[in-house]
Amino acid sequence: MSSKITPNTVSPPKKVRVGVLGATGTVGQRFITLLSEHPWFIIEALGASERSKGRKYREAVKWKQTIPLGGLGLGGVGTSETEKISSSDLRSDEGRAADLIVKGCTPEEFKTCQLVFSGLDADVAGDIEYAFRAANIPLFSNAKNYRRDPHVPLIVPLVNPSHFSIIPQQQSLHSPPLSKGFIVTNANCSTTGYVIPLAALEKAFGPIESVLVTTMQAISGAGYPGVPSLDILGNVVPYIGGEEEKIEWETLKILGGITDSENETDKNGAPLKTFDMHQAGGRPALRVSASCNRVPVVDGHMECVSLRFHRRPPPSPQQVREALSVFTPEIQSLGCPSSPRKAIEVFEEPDRPQPRLDVKGTHNGAGVSVGRVRQCQVLDIKFVVLSDNVSIGAATSSIINAEYAVLKGIVS
Amino acid sequence: MSSKITPNTVSPPKKVRVGVLGATGTVGQRFITLLSEHPWFIIEALGASERSKGRKYREAVKWKQTIPLGGLGLGGVGTSETEKISSSDLRSDEGRAADLIVKGCTPEEFKTCQLVFSGLDADVAGDIEYAFRAANIPLFSNAKNYRRDPHVPLIVPLVNPSHFSIIPQQQSLHSPPLSKGFIVTNANCSTTGYVIPLAALEKAFGPIESVLVTTMQAISGAGYPGVPSLDILGNVVPYIGGEEEKIEWETLKILGGITDSENETDKNGAPLKTFDMHQAGGRPALRVSASCNRVPVVDGHMECVSLRFHRRPPPSPQQVREALSVFTPEIQSLGCPSSPRKAIEVFEEPDRPQPRLDVKGTHNGAGVSVGRVRQCQVLDIKFVVLSDNVSIGAATSSIINAEYAVLKGIVS
Amino acid sequence: MSSKITPNTVSPPKKVRVGVLGATGTVGQRFITLLSEHPWFIIEALGASERSKGRKYREAVKWKQTIPLGGLGLGGVGTSETEKISSSDLRSDEGRAADLIVKGCTPEEFKTCQLVFSGLDADVAGDIEYAFRAANIPLFSNAKNYRRDPHVPLIVPLVNPSHFSIIPQQQSLHSPPLSKGFIVTNANCSTTGYVIPLAALEKAFGPIESVLVTTMQAISGAGYPGVPSLDILGNVVPYIGGEEEKIEWETLKILGGITDSENETDKNGAPLKTFDMHQAGGRPALRVSASCNRVPVVDGHMECVSLRFHRRPPPSPQQVREALSVFTPEIQSLGCPSSPRKAIEVFEEPDRPQPRLDVKGTHNGAGVSVGRVRQCQVLDIKFVVLSDNVSIGAATSSIINAEYAVLKGIVS
Amino acid sequence: MSSKITPNTVSPPKKVRVGVLGATGTVGQRFITLLSEHPWFIIEALGASERSKGRKYREAVKWKQTIPLGGLGLGGVGTSETEKISSSDLRSDEGRAADLIVKGCTPEEFKTCQLVFSGLDADVAGDIEYAFRAANIPLFSNAKNYRRDPHVPLIVPLVNPSHFSIIPQQQSLHSPPLSKGFIVTNANCSTTGYVIPLAALEKAFGPIESVLVTTMQAISGAGYPGVPSLDILGNVVPYIGGEEEKIEWETLKILGGITDSENETDKNGAPLKTFDMHQAGGRPALRVSASCNRVPVVDGHMECVSLRFHRRPPPSPQQVREALSVFTPEIQSLGCPSSPRKAIEVFEEPDRPQPRLDVKGTHNGAGVSVGRVRQCQVLDIKFVVLSDNVSIGAATSSIINAEYAVLKGIVS
Repeated sequence: MSSKITPNTVSPPKKVRVGVLGATGTVGQRFITLLSEHPWFIIEALGASERSKGRKYREAVKWKQTIPLGGLGLGGVGTSETEKISSSDLRSDEGRAADLIVKGCTPEEFKTCQLVFSGLDADVAGDIEYAFRAANIPLFSNAKNYRRDPHVPLIVPLVNPSHFSIIPQQQSLHSPPLSKGFIVTNANCSTTGYVIPLAALEKAFGPIESVLVTTMQAISGAGYPGVPSLDILGNVVPYIGGEEEKIEWETLKILGGITDSENETDKNGAPLKTFDMHQAGGRPALRVSASCNRVPVVDGHMECVSLRFHRRPPPSPQQVREALSVFTPEIQSLGCPSSPRKAIEVFEEPDRPQPRLDVKGTHNGAGVSVGRVRQCQVLDIKFVVLSDNVSIGAATSSIINAEYAVLKGIVS
Repeated sequence: MSSKITPNTVSPPKKVRVGVLGATGTVGQRFITLLSEHPWFIIEALGASERSKGRKYREAVKWKQTIPLGGLGLGGVGTSETEKISSSDLRSDEGRAADLIVKGCTPEEFKTCQLVFSGLDADVAGDIEYAFRAANIPLFSNAKNYRRDPHVPLIVPLVNPSHFSIIPQQQSLHSPPLSKGFIVTNANCSTTGYVIPLAALEKAFGPIESVLVTTMQAISGAGYPGVPSLDILGNVVPYIGGEEEKIEWETLKILGGITDSENETDKNGAPLKTFDMHQAGGRPALRVSASCNRVPVVDGHMECVSLRFHRRPPPSPQQVREALSVFTPEIQSLGCPSSPRKAIEVFEEPDRPQPRLDVKGTHNGAGVSVGRVRQCQVLDIKFVVLSDNVSIGAATSSIINAEYAVLKGIVS
Repeated sequence: MSSKITPNTVSPPKKVRVGVLGATGTVGQRFITLLSEHPWFIIEALGASERSKGRKYREAVKWKQTIPLGGLGLGGVGTSETEKISSSDLRSDEGRAADLIVKGCTPEEFKTCQLVFSGLDADVAGDIEYAFRAANIPLFSNAKNYRRDPHVPLIVPLVNPSHFSIIPQQQSLHSPPLSKGFIVTNANCSTTGYVIPLAALEKAFGPIESVLVTTMQAISGAGYPGVPSLDILGNVVPYIGGEEEKIEWETLKILGGITDSENETDKNGAPLKTFDMHQAGGRPALRVSASCNRVPVVDGHMECVSLRFHRRPPPSPQQVREALSVFTPEIQSLGCPSSPRKAIEVFEEPDRPQPRLDVKGTHNGAGVSVGRVRQCQVLDIKFVVLSDNVSIGAATSSIINAEYAVLKGIVS
Repeated sequence: MSSKITPNTVSPPKKVRVGVLGATGTVGQRFITLLSEHPWFIIEALGASERSKGRKYREAVKWKQTIPLGGLGLGGVGTSETEKISSSDLRSDEGRAADLIVKGCTPEEFKTCQLVFSGLDADVAGDIEYAFRAANIPLFSNAKNYRRDPHVPLIVPLVNPSHFSIIPQQQSLHSPPLSKGFIVTNANCSTTGYVIPLAALEKAFGPIESVLVTTMQAISGAGYPGVPSLDILGNVVPYIGGEEEKIEWETLKILGGITDSENETDKNGAPLKTFDMHQAGGRPALRVSASCNRVPVVDGHMECVSLRFHRRPPPSPQQVREALSVFTPEIQSLGCPSSPRKAIEVFEEPDRPQPRLDVKGTHNGAGVSVGRVRQCQVLDIKFVVLSDNVSIGAATSSIINAEYAVLKGIVS
């Protein structure tokens, strides 16, 4: 973390013109909701499928947010404090998104944007996102397509923004090399939620050896129309396709460092940087086992986590609670406007957090909540973590990643 | 298991007169529903609190079962096949329970009963159950009060009916010694469901060393009025008071054997029998870690289980599936009428079992369902188990225990 | 109603070979569940879309019923008593449906069927059903396509099976005239439920002048995948496309009689029969106003009904309760095996019926339940009616219609 | 309405010290949430039962609001814009309520309060509220006990604040006469929601003759613990004790005027004022018929309303939409800070409003939403109305009533 930049001295950038791909979808709607209140980012262009192209956004979208489309930018219910303070500056943008004409998802139509957010579905994100990067446009994607790419960082902003350091390599390896374009992905919603306390604990107590996580995931995680009501009303579905695998490997990429590759070099013969998948430096390998369930909850992924530390004896539950509570990620000290004021809220009540009461927390879903920290009879420590899958688990993470990139000069 | 008794040769006993304590409560209603269709047991007496005493059952109860009180004994929806076959014999009992006059819960009022079932609340069960045993009445209790008693067996009928062997000692240690009375308890609903596959796996593959279980429990497990709707609608509550502790120690008592006590003897100097809490015979200690959650499901506890075997290498998922599928508990081969025809239904579909679709199975909730058997990256094997908490998790277990006791001559 | 046929003397017909169109859909699955236990009907052929054609049914279908596909025909949970009694006769059919090879929906592939049930979606039902009739196959359809056809009866079997009398005209007007083929439709699920008590009340008290009905409809009424969970979990949607119009005009066709047309004649100059839409014979016109809502209930449509009778003074609530309770439709006295033993169950408890407890009733969903009969301050009488939308509201009605047609010799 | 007072000129009063009775209950928590952000009202005292007396509020309460108790007064999520603007003034009150020592509910302990809000349960509200009035304390009650009192106004602040005119008579008839104390009640939540559009329509089109209303009410309307989850999960309960009667007569008191009594006089012989129950002045009697249902929704009462106007021809749906949309209650033009900026939001989308998406609206639940305005085939017009039962349906109404009384000088 740069010690030269402090929250009090960071100068707000000029307005940054941004675009949103997949604007009519669930994640896209969430991007627009958040960006409409954003102190820096101005929505310049919205892209969607051919069916929506050429129509006003308000007519193309089937709006499913609790904040009315017409109320965006008014500083209303459901916005974080930081954004509210700035909302008076945005008066001129009121309703702006609603009246934009939806564009197709081609780089040409977004060339006035300084950066673009992608809420595209995975079945189309691959080609479109590739084209945007090739057109030298910085792209912050919520889609899964490039998460496994060895040159694309997978960034949970409260955990590993340091992985932006791979961007220059990503740009230089592109043919032709890129001066501005890149792709940054954020993680799967269920990974994002539980990896934040893991990062806090590794920071305080050193390597974690094994993690068992059982999720109870909200329906909003599947988008719209998503989960049929006949499948989930009064029911639990003990399976979410591909989800367990995502948690198991994404955790390794996020919590791991970046090291020099042993056998890959660039054209100058210098070793390429590579993600060490949490296994570098002689540290013990991390093993992750996930069991994923869908439950009839609208918003908020609950995850029951048990873990074993490398260090013996392990920290006590009280030490764990304290370490979680004081965890301060770089984006917070750096002053990213969408950062939560507190990354991890630790509950002492025996029956909290709960999705319906606590999903938004006091940080509009940008932080996570942890409760029931106690000893595990099999591993060392167990707890529950609750995260807002549609905020920090999706669009909010992309936006904070972009804020970080702007503050660090990665996006100009 | 007695090899002399086979399902085809077991001679149905004469009618057995039974009573139900706590008859107006949730578990009591379930006892009455099941007993009204039972081929052997005839409801002789119903007991409840002072408020209900002296009233007709149909007037005292707030009936909450999906089978109408007036339809009991008619061979209708929701009864197992075995019971249906016999239901014609019961025509004379039709509607019998509904018109019985509710009694107080004193042994005097139940002295014509050959055995009694208890669905009493824990706050009153202690004294009442003690009095019934002292009055020489065999009592099968769903309450938790005597589960930890060192002379009272805690029996999951598909797992450890062999623990009935402690009954003679329980009777002889009573002052004065009892000729017929005893207390048998069945386990907590969340323990019952997941301990059945554990027993099947220990039988096939030897000792299990550690188990991590995360439950997603139905609201009916809390009785009525039970969980307030404001707490659970569209929500998950990551806490059920006392539940994790119950699972953790009940598992040890149920899966453990009975051995000679090292330092306690009876008046003849013979060593007393004692429960070995799963630690006898030099076997490795079993460690259990439970995380319990309440979810908005009406009936059916889902449990995500990860476990590690003592034996190396551990069995493969396919071997586990097969061992579960062929598991045949003694009560099944013995011919207990309420036994499931299949103890464990193993699902191959990736997204099953699910509470809403599968809770009753093909055995009216007397068996359990297992799905998603696969490798665990941290322990050895993981799977989900679904059990019907109001059937095998409660009244059905008490009833099978009583059937076993009748067939074995423990109740005369 | 024929007075010569009584339930005790009706001779069960020989086995009737039947087909099911749309077999993999929600309604199709329900047809197969019910037919697998049916005393007369033998499933001969299953038809579905090209995607499923040629595959075994068990492989083509995504089975969503609570009775396992493999358990069909075993007399298990969820079957009516009549069917159970006969189930031993069906042993040879066990599992038959599951192993049938799915056919395309062409008449050629169903020519060995004596009658066919249609659970087709409306977007394909029009042409397919037309072709089946033209191929001289009697067709009982749950689809909406032909409900408004002036020669196709819309039959709620507990209300207006007398409308089968239009069939000869339907056959003779076809070109070429048909000897056996015809189309009979059953009504929309929300119409079916509330029109049964209306019919009972008109029978007892004469014409109803106006009806206001507000529905609270279950998600299963929309099929699968149907209602997205994000739309309905913890929510009410005050709109179901086209539903209010269906209730408003279907009621008129069902409750109306059949009269001679004033200006249409057949080729012999005889007046054509026509549906009088509840306005014939000088009776006052019936006005119906419906408000339809979707609620988060799995099965069971609740409907709040207020109505005004023509006769003054109107009947009292107690008279209404009695008239509903004694209502005996022709199909019941005729001995249709899927008929409920009681058409209308009248509840006295103030808070019943409720979908979760009462939807199946004691008749496996073939009857309806009425409660809260009381005076209306604006019209005359109000009450709630609960019907099982997937049983009497769909497949069960088609099946009873077919049973009636078989008993009356309309299908040979 | 006073034409001299306009929103722009109203001078904010000095701080007003207020108390809350029943502070630990559901309504009490809501009072505290709203008052913590209020620009005028300062919480001075909290009262609850003996069990809570003497403890810090944060320890006595089982907090069930989505805004954390510790976050109150911070201008966080869920507060209306008006309140937010003023929240900086309140910095000194941060967390004030949480640390107050809970008092008993006696007037002595509240004598420094200028007015008191009551969220007491009906079983204790009668005596306590009487004592507070007798102690000369103005009391704004959400309890039902005094709603039928012939000298106590029943005020829906968006409808009939003019009924404050009965207060002088209420005070003078008290023995001894009161100079400041009085009781004002607000209406039942389901009455409040639907009576607002009724008032708007009577204002525009004259008397309504009859109204049929079918409610689908949220569980939060029953308080905590309130509705057991086993009763409502995946279910509809077609009954709420006493609710239909409340709607039917409260509507008459609220929409009616105040006239001179024909046979009651004060001690000076002047006729007493009396509520005309909507029947004065030769206008046609209003008839109301209500059917009340509980549905599994957390917050937000939906009501399907059909009504008939006296005037012929009745207004068209479009005229109704316009009249609802322009309705401006006195409290809004007067500048009550908790008034919605728009009393009635009219939706054009066919499937809105919906509780989950629209309950808070853009006015934090202080206004209501109307949708689906269309012709009724039996009466004249039908529509749905959605109101936030825990806001305008409860505490918000009490608070606006108090704001009105302060602005009008009724409370000094």
